Amino acid sequence: MDEQTASLIESHIAMQNVTVIGAGVIGISWIALFLARGLRVVVYDNAPNIEQRVISSIQAILPNIETVELPVSSLLKRLSFETDLARAVMSADVIQENGPDKINFKRKLWIEIERYAPQHALFLSSSSGIPTRIQASGMQRPGRLLIGHPFNPPHLIPLVEVVPHKRALPETTQRALSFYRMIGKQPILLRKEVPGFVANRLQAALMREALLLVKWDVVTVDELDEIVTRSLGLRWATGGPFVSFHMGGGPKGFTGFIDHFSWGMQLLWLQSKFSPVFFSTELKEKLLNQISASFGKKSLTELEADRDRCIIALQRTLDKVK
Amino acid sequence: MDEQTASLIESHIAMQNVTVIGAGVIGISWIALFLARGLRVVVYDNAPNIEQRVISSIQAILPNIETVELPVSSLLKRLSFETDLARAVMSADVIQENGPDKINFKRKLWIEIERYAPQHALFLSSSSGIPTRIQASGMQRPGRLLIGHPFNPPHLIPLVEVVPHKRALPETTQRALSFYRMIGKQPILLRKEVPGFVANRLQAALMREALLLVKWDVVTVDELDEIVTRSLGLRWATGGPFVSFHMGGGPKGFTGFIDHFSWGMQLLWLQSKFSPVFFSTELKEKLLNQISASFGKKSLTELEADRDRCIIALQRTLDKVK
Ligand SMILES: NC(=O)c1ccc[n+]([C@@H]2O[C@H](COP(=O)([O-])OP(=O)(O)OC[C@H]3O[C@@H](n4cnc5c(N)ncnc54)[C@H](O)[C@@H]3O)[C@@H](O)[C@H]2O)c1
Ligand SMILES: NC(=O)c1ccc[n+]([C@@H]2O[C@H](COP(=O)([O-])OP(=O)(O)OC[C@H]3O[C@@H](n4cnc5c(N)ncnc54)[C@H](O)[C@@H]3O)[C@@H](O)[C@H]2O)c1
Repeated sequence: MDEQTASLIESHIAMQNVTVIGAGVIGISWIALFLARGLRVVVYDNAPNIEQRVISSIQAILPNIETVELPVSSLLKRLSFETDLARAVMSADVIQENGPDKINFKRKLWIEIERYAPQHALFLSSSSGIPTRIQASGMQRPGRLLIGHPFNPPHLIPLVEVVPHKRALPETTQRALSFYRMIGKQPILLRKEVPGFVANRLQAALMREALLLVKWDVVTVDELDEIVTRSLGLRWATGGPFVSFHMGGGPKGFTGFIDHFSWGMQLLWLQSKFSPVFFSTELKEKLLNQISASFGKKSLTELEADRDRCIIALQRTLDKVK
Repeated sequence: MDEQTASLIESHIAMQNVTVIGAGVIGISWIALFLARGLRVVVYDNAPNIEQRVISSIQAILPNIETVELPVSSLLKRLSFETDLARAVMSADVIQENGPDKINFKRKLWIEIERYAPQHALFLSSSSGIPTRIQASGMQRPGRLLIGHPFNPPHLIPLVEVVPHKRALPETTQRALSFYRMIGKQPILLRKEVPGFVANRLQAALMREALLLVKWDVVTVDELDEIVTRSLGLRWATGGPFVSFHMGGGPKGFTGFIDHFSWGMQLLWLQSKFSPVFFSTELKEKLLNQISASFGKKSLTELEADRDRCIIALQRTLDKVK
């Protein structure tokens, strides 16, 4: 056994016990994934009927996770619930936090967790909005905490953005990446923390333009969605914007792209920049009306089932082809 | 045979002869697709060695088009070249124009074409940049001309944006949509003409944010690309931004999305709006250096082959699953 393999096994052994704090939309999806990957999971969530809610939700999710070969009942043996925070984190190797996105909640939580969790435990927050710097501000060793930001639904979308802050410890960062890789995710380590991180910022930028086009009556919401799935989505599932423009630039690659298209692109930016967009009452009404007249006719459950079926099939195809 | 079927067959019969003006990146891809779908194609392009260039390029493309069952040699029997514009368009049912994106070239071209083409011929321009209004400004019957804007590469990406101008004739628009559907594309009719149309505007908006993140050193170009393929690309190949946020908003759907996320999104817009981005010498250098150190190491041919293989596989999967 070479050194790398040995250290890989060692680190896997040390990451078998996960505590999930907050079992809402994101937490439940993490729980299903952790169980399917063979980990033991302790859940801490103060909602009433939490056990029942979690178990029925993960029974719906588990069949969607490819490598599940064990019967669901035997996976559930590795799942337990705790209402006392100290006991919930006492034996944790990894803590994945998915509580409400409120500063005070997260700050207090990590102070408590640090008091009770083992020294080696990894602290990871799913937060989309609250920087680690702020979450960790009351901790003795703030360097232990990182953002491990998934993309909804975490059991299907491979990305996790690992976001270090200035005081993050390099070994924590490496262990977080190993942990996510071990459970089959494809984490990316950001180099700096900025509001919204990367994927949500890109999404917000495209959404602004999408809202402008609907506001201007160039397309309706469902027409815009179809344009995206039939062009950009397919392109970007295959290669990101930079490599795509590198190929779109002709024989000179990205230089050719800059020569031919940067000027026109800058003009589009300028026009959009000076076209106000916000969620006004009027725009909201238009959006909701168009949604009711199109995909809003289907139930959320039906839409989600369609989405999940597609994502699973696409991901399997990509795994084969890439 | 019902009326609809009859008129469908009639219109198909009337769209068997296509003239392709300009056989560069986009023109060649259209030619391959038209041939594979059983149409007769006349090519008009004033470049030297055009026959040789077109034939070798389409031989490379044809195996990528799913329904090709005929040997390439028999497809090539339906391909011919003309150096005289009048003769090139004389028997055309459809003209797909893909010449250089220059106003004077396109304006003069359509005036000439209108003189020689049959009365029933459809006039379609692939232009990404020059509005129909301007292209058609010298024509007797400007209502005949529409933008039929493909997404590169047209033989693989299903979208065609059909863009009418104010004087466009409704029957022309309907025939353009039928033509593209007949050859297996998924056209979308825009309701208004705006610079960049829809897909390129969305792409430009995301690209601006991507450049900002690279400028700020949050990620490198290849890291950004990986974030996109592992999250947004996969999501948007399945469902566009509106239906995705409808599902991301919890039980209240899009209303829930507005309640929870619109405020944060507006703040991100504001920060980006006031962060200047343009293709400065410094940014260009950074981008090109990062590209050289990552995907730029592969040849364009290799990157394109990877992309095409992936897109074909994903599209087949989507056709099956959807
Ligand atoms: N929803 C998304 O698309 C998404 C995506 C990525 C990251 N995130 C982040 O994940 C986190 C959770 O988001 P969500 O959408 O799952 O929210 P949610 O409201 O669905 O779930 C929050 C859960 O926390 C529980 N909770 C509330 N107070 C608690 C307490 N004091 N102690 C323990 N548990 C408590 C609630 O009962 C609920 O089950 C947030 O930080 C969010 O920013 C969300
Ligand atoms: N490249 C893209 O990604 C893309 C995508 C969608 C639409 N378009 C549009 O498609 C059109 C063509 O773009 P391209 O990228 O294929 O350009 P290109 O430069 O690769 O091809 C242009 C072709 O036109 C020929 N040509 C030049 N002058 C001519 C003349 N006077 N008569 C006949 N032929 C002439 C050239 O020989 C060349 O083969 C443009 O209007 C562009 O906006 C391009």
